Amino acid sequence: MDFKEFKEFSADMINYVGNYLENIRDRKVLSSVKPGYLRPLLPAEAPNDPENWKDVMNDVEKLIMPGVTHWHSPRFHAYFPTANSYPAIVADILSDSIACIGFSWISSPACTELEVVMMDWLAKMIGLPEMFLASAGQGGGGVIQGTASEATLVALLGAKARMLQKIKATDPAIVDSDVVPKLVAYSSELSHSSVERAGLLGGVLLRAVATDGEHKLRGDTLRDIIRKDRADGLIPFFVVATLGTTSCCSFDRLDEIAEVGKEEDIWVHVDAAYAGSSFVCPEYRHYMKGVELVHSFNFNPHKWLQVTFDCSAMWLKNPNYVINAFNVDPLYLKHELEGQMPDYRHWQIPLGRRFRSLKMWFVFRLIGVANLQKSIRKDINLAHEFASRLENNPNFELFNEVTMGLVCFRIKGSNEINEALLKKINDRGKIYMVPSKVKGSFFLRMAICSKYTQMEDINVTWNEVKEAGEIIMSNEK
Amino acid sequence: MDFKEFKEFSADMINYVGNYLENIRDRKVLSSVKPGYLRPLLPAEAPNDPENWKDVMNDVEKLIMPGVTHWHSPRFHAYFPTANSYPAIVADILSDSIACIGFSWISSPACTELEVVMMDWLAKMIGLPEMFLASAGQGGGGVIQGTASEATLVALLGAKARMLQKIKATDPAIVDSDVVPKLVAYSSELSHSSVERAGLLGGVLLRAVATDGEHKLRGDTLRDIIRKDRADGLIPFFVVATLGTTSCCSFDRLDEIAEVGKEEDIWVHVDAAYAGSSFVCPEYRHYMKGVELVHSFNFNPHKWLQVTFDCSAMWLKNPNYVINAFNVDPLYLKHELEGQMPDYRHWQIPLGRRFRSLKMWFVFRLIGVANLQKSIRKDINLAHEFASRLENNPNFELFNEVTMGLVCFRIKGSNEINEALLKKINDRGKIYMVPSKVKGSFFLRMAICSKYTQMEDINVTWNEVKEAGEIIMSNEK
Repeated sequence: MDFKEFKEFSADMINYVGNYLENIRDRKVLSSVKPGYLRPLLPAEAPNDPENWKDVMNDVEKLIMPGVTHWHSPRFHAYFPTANSYPAIVADILSDSIACIGFSWISSPACTELEVVMMDWLAKMIGLPEMFLASAGQGGGGVIQGTASEATLVALLGAKARMLQKIKATDPAIVDSDVVPKLVAYSSELSHSSVERAGLLGGVLLRAVATDGEHKLRGDTLRDIIRKDRADGLIPFFVVATLGTTSCCSFDRLDEIAEVGKEEDIWVHVDAAYAGSSFVCPEYRHYMKGVELVHSFNFNPHKWLQVTFDCSAMWLKNPNYVINAFNVDPLYLKHELEGQMPDYRHWQIPLGRRFRSLKMWFVFRLIGVANLQKSIRKDINLAHEFASRLENNPNFELFNEVTMGLVCFRIKGSNEINEALLKKINDRGKIYMVPSKVKGSFFLRMAICSKYTQMEDINVTWNEVKEAGEIIMSNEK
Repeated sequence: MDFKEFKEFSADMINYVGNYLENIRDRKVLSSVKPGYLRPLLPAEAPNDPENWKDVMNDVEKLIMPGVTHWHSPRFHAYFPTANSYPAIVADILSDSIACIGFSWISSPACTELEVVMMDWLAKMIGLPEMFLASAGQGGGGVIQGTASEATLVALLGAKARMLQKIKATDPAIVDSDVVPKLVAYSSELSHSSVERAGLLGGVLLRAVATDGEHKLRGDTLRDIIRKDRADGLIPFFVVATLGTTSCCSFDRLDEIAEVGKEEDIWVHVDAAYAGSSFVCPEYRHYMKGVELVHSFNFNPHKWLQVTFDCSAMWLKNPNYVINAFNVDPLYLKHELEGQMPDYRHWQIPLGRRFRSLKMWFVFRLIGVANLQKSIRKDINLAHEFASRLENNPNFELFNEVTMGLVCFRIKGSNEINEALLKKINDRGKIYMVPSKVKGSFFLRMAICSKYTQMEDINVTWNEVKEAGEIIMSNEK
């Protein structure tokens, strides 16, 4: 494909995707294909000779779109949002074209340096303490990870390295296998599945700790279990505080957990994957109280801050634990100017990394902080609007308080009736939701996921829920 | 940013990146900025109000490009190639716009299904055995990982799960901590740094095994060390065979290693990160002899097959070990149609995943297998051309046989003189190389990295090497 064809093809694609997004409300949100739909429609092998790009373009609408679940439809209320914006799409064109691999500073200085500055910009945007800013010169700084799962694993491995170092310093005869089987990490019972997985991958015991009546992990509960574990000869080393759980968007009491972390000298990691974006609005920062005591903090601009996947923002107070744990440098990766700027390969699981900070730079400059705030506030307001309809209807109840763009609700009744409600709603095909279950109670999650969602969409969603509820209730009688 | 501005901005960007790539030969390959160059040129904070896209566009050339090391310049001979192509760039526009997260089949069926079929296409393109094809229905199949580092870690964790399961089946009283400290994995002493890191992350002993005179890991050496380890009470469970080492592109003897793996019942993983792309050409497939006996196979189309980063292709003979090791499913990720198609979240470390198979589909269809083969053969021919210049010059020697697009060479003399040679070459600023050191011998690596590289570029590179060599030699006298 030559430059001329590239211009034609990309112009056609830009026109296609713009029309796709601007009219996404008209598409059926959930794909209705059956498993295995695609293979019979494709050749069994790659072609030997190049095809015409117009044929590929036609196949996108014909073969791919029927199998797409439209995450940016205002009718999509499942999971949590994933970001999308025109500036981020254009930034990726540039990133894909420069196509450098930023594993060290020298491998493309701009790739590292823009990331350092963008992570400082973002830290300021959400009001993180100075210790996390590279510009503060206190040793802390930020890095873009692929996902919050990876950030949690990196934090856990850093914490593990820190505790091993601390214990070995007391007695040079101690080896890893004396310590590792005794290490114990903690998170709320409602923390994300990736936290449990990080424990599995890191080869350490991870305790899911009970939450209070508002589904928050509390300091006293954590302190009690840590002390009991110590009494039993275990070695507490790491706790994850979740700000905005996936199950029901509850917020662990970071102020209390951070105090316990300090008392007990264990690494506190904050997983604010979804809700962290809301901290661009000062009125939500109270959830971060205690953050000046934590060791690492992570949230996903690729969820709710208009930076397309993948861009998971992580800050470390002292990156050296992670850097030393991961450093296995061969000669071909070393360079003369090491140590003056981060070599980000030491901050992450993979070696390779794309020029992802361009997306942040484009989005922050071309959308601006005020519009990012406005968009977050719009989503939260719409969630409250939906919640108020539920509250004014005798059939429904909220599962818990609405804090962000997620409403957790159920029909007043059994789990079975709520399972039937979810099935009815999704089978009707107008909107898409997923369920959750907390402390034995099954409920539906209505997440505001699209930047296109407006009040008219909430009307549609509410009507769907209400009508499906009426059908289910009448079937019950 | 509205649709109209998006069209203007993206058209301008496409024009910019096309001109960048078509004229990349004219840019100085290695950035000459000093660490910290960028921060003083940027505001300390993100803007409150949106800026004009034209200002951002201007800043790309003014602020970013001076800090870019141009990986696609024909003068770039460092590391290994990273891929780039117009079809892949356009595919990413589509992927970024659909912006679905493909962690389960239902979350966007096309995202999973196209990946299943593309991994089959690619397996056929490189001549992998049937057991790795999803269409063969033998339980095997492929998955796109972010990097080879992650693929190695996934394979190691799968192998660990398999061995734990096998040993526990013999005695239900056995627990993980009885086994894990005894587990031992193997790779060549020249395997990639990410293999050592996978051992660290997986919490198991990894032995770097000595290679033969041609820098290949041999079956007999491996067998001896495994038997000695067993005699010492250890539990061998995993071996990585590298096809095309990063240090010097040597190929472990997979035929022998696979036999040992079979005899000893340990998981054999193939890391063909760079060289795997060459197997689209049948004449290089002899390096894969024995592949029908391995458990997992990985290479990076994002290196040498024109699919932009990230796209690391991994096949598993029996994905269930990995799936079961990683499965920590909460209710909100479950769906009714589980089990009929892969839920790829169980095949990888992170939860989230982009629609990356679109890049493979676009590249394979719009470039075609014949052109991909042609491009690989061109690069290998150019490497041989460069090698023949070296061999005809009395000052230089090849470090080892040239097999792919990498030439490892040195001045006949000390390591110090070769360190001086590398410094001289890179300081002159026309071309960029990195060194390696194998068995105490320091040498330079000349990798063919750009699809734009032609014979005229080899002339330039050779002249640079020759002249730098003459200067160094005359300084020595």
